[in-house]
Amino acid sequence: MPTRPFAGRRCLVTGGLGFIGSNLALDLARRGADVTVLDSRVARHGANPANLIPDGGDETDPSITVVEADLGDVQRPEVRDATLAAEFVFNLAGQVSHVDSMEDPLFDLSVNTTSQFRFLELLRRENVAATVVYTSTRQIFGKPRYLPVDEEHPVAPVDVNGITKYATEQLHLLYHEIYGLPATAVRLTNVFGPRQRLRDDLQGFLPIFVRRALADDTIAVFGDGAQERDCLYVDDVVECLEHAALSADAPGQIFNVGNDERLSLGAIAEAVVRAAGSGRVEHVPWPPDRDAIDIGSYFGDSSKAKRMLGWAPRTSFADGIARTLAFYRARPKWYL
Amino acid sequence: MPTRPFAGRRCLVTGGLGFIGSNLALDLARRGADVTVLDSRVARHGANPANLIPDGGDETDPSITVVEADLGDVQRPEVRDATLAAEFVFNLAGQVSHVDSMEDPLFDLSVNTTSQFRFLELLRRENVAATVVYTSTRQIFGKPRYLPVDEEHPVAPVDVNGITKYATEQLHLLYHEIYGLPATAVRLTNVFGPRQRLRDDLQGFLPIFVRRALADDTIAVFGDGAQERDCLYVDDVVECLEHAALSADAPGQIFNVGNDERLSLGAIAEAVVRAAGSGRVEHVPWPPDRDAIDIGSYFGDSSKAKRMLGWAPRTSFADGIARTLAFYRARPKWYL
Repeated sequence: MPTRPFAGRRCLVTGGLGFIGSNLALDLARRGADVTVLDSRVARHGANPANLIPDGGDETDPSITVVEADLGDVQRPEVRDATLAAEFVFNLAGQVSHVDSMEDPLFDLSVNTTSQFRFLELLRRENVAATVVYTSTRQIFGKPRYLPVDEEHPVAPVDVNGITKYATEQLHLLYHEIYGLPATAVRLTNVFGPRQRLRDDLQGFLPIFVRRALADDTIAVFGDGAQERDCLYVDDVVECLEHAALSADAPGQIFNVGNDERLSLGAIAEAVVRAAGSGRVEHVPWPPDRDAIDIGSYFGDSSKAKRMLGWAPRTSFADGIARTLAFYRARPKWYL
Repeated sequence: MPTRPFAGRRCLVTGGLGFIGSNLALDLARRGADVTVLDSRVARHGANPANLIPDGGDETDPSITVVEADLGDVQRPEVRDATLAAEFVFNLAGQVSHVDSMEDPLFDLSVNTTSQFRFLELLRRENVAATVVYTSTRQIFGKPRYLPVDEEHPVAPVDVNGITKYATEQLHLLYHEIYGLPATAVRLTNVFGPRQRLRDDLQGFLPIFVRRALADDTIAVFGDGAQERDCLYVDDVVECLEHAALSADAPGQIFNVGNDERLSLGAIAEAVVRAAGSGRVEHVPWPPDRDAIDIGSYFGDSSKAKRMLGWAPRTSFADGIARTLAFYRARPKWYL
């Protein structure tokens, strides 16, 4: 990577008030980019204006422009202007709760697919030179047929969220193929770190574990907790998305992005409690609605991303979770 | 199959004014079923009220009830009533033009995915025992990596239609998995026969070839026309969908449905001209917009359908095309 590759470059981060988006927006701003965040500010999806307060700061980064709108509202001048001005689009906006996607499939489809189709139509018609990095999800693979899961693994979504995200991922790749839009899809594993929504149980097991440990509460691990996961610290994800945006080889490609460090859910829960010095782990029977959509062990094969993007995760789970806990302890009013 | 397995059974055919749907609705009615057609009557998608005139008749089958509505209008009492009453749902409604799907992706998504999500939500909530057979498409595979294409072949849609149809196919399978809805997906190859829309070039190459031969016009074959296809006569498709509906093993399964008889596009064009005794074949350069979405040779591996459904195609291309041409010649005012 050049020393300051994003300095002065116009970067649009959709979903930039959310967990990964805000960490990315702050990092791009630190690197001198001209950052605009486009976010419909749905708290349930993870949006939190306080997410744009830099580490160690107490007010939101004034260099970041925030456009509060749905990226599918392409008739709104501010959405249109932000989209057409972008040199780099980090397209992270979406509904991320697997449980919510089963409760209201039409809403999930509207947010994750219909709005995204509108946004991509605008891009391909009026800003087809913009580099686009889309965050897809490991959820599209369903229950792995083999491990680690590489990009060739068959797709078999086990929830509505996997279906709607896959459709949008494929539209990105199609628009690269047909129109030359330089779009890349990154399929992320479980991500954790500062700025994740902790207030409810909608964003996967990691924020639940963190919240409960911080509250000195019991972490319930379903069954024996032997299923393995490759958790990725958010700073490593940010770096990967930046590498993907700058790689001349990335457009048209899909990358599975996970971690070589694999831990069982039980071991993850124990590690969180140990790092927090509070909370405890209890094994409980599987709730039927969770059991229905569980996928067993999952870990991804990130070798394509390492090879083509020159990226590798650098943060161990132990280091990442320590930083994560310190972050939330320093900012309880925004997250707890 | 029992002698009269559909006799007295309530069958709903969505898209039943269209090409395959109308052939199926008429066949089910002949077998004594209580048939309702649910169709939004979009001529461009193939809907034609004359499609419900049985062979040799001159008026539409009076035993078939037609509900003219979009299957996604689940608030409309007639849509709701028809959906809740069905024992068998043959779910064929959709936008089928690959070219149109690229022109207006949002419309394609609305018809092929959003309306279908609404319809499936109604089914799973209020008629989860209904047997559902959904017609998917070989288009979801894109350019084949190997031939013949079986159910394990990776999915890689090369147009918006492939993306939107795949999302809906997957929702059917998901609702089987999670809610026990007895749903099956059948991925069809190129289908031809009576009641296909001939008036424009929206439904693939076969109706174009047929129309031009009947008009004693030139059939343009792009390039050398050496790409192979497995064309399937509509009566064989109807039989396959009926077998899928009656098979206890079919729910939750995907079947690739093609034909072991494979012909090059050039040979197909020649065969149509020969059978018609009119028209001629001319090889022309690829138009760029078609070249961009062409997939080369395609033929499917139907062995899973044969094995599990006890089905096999019975009509040769030569026989099927002769019957097809005779049909349109007998009913020019409705089709030409």
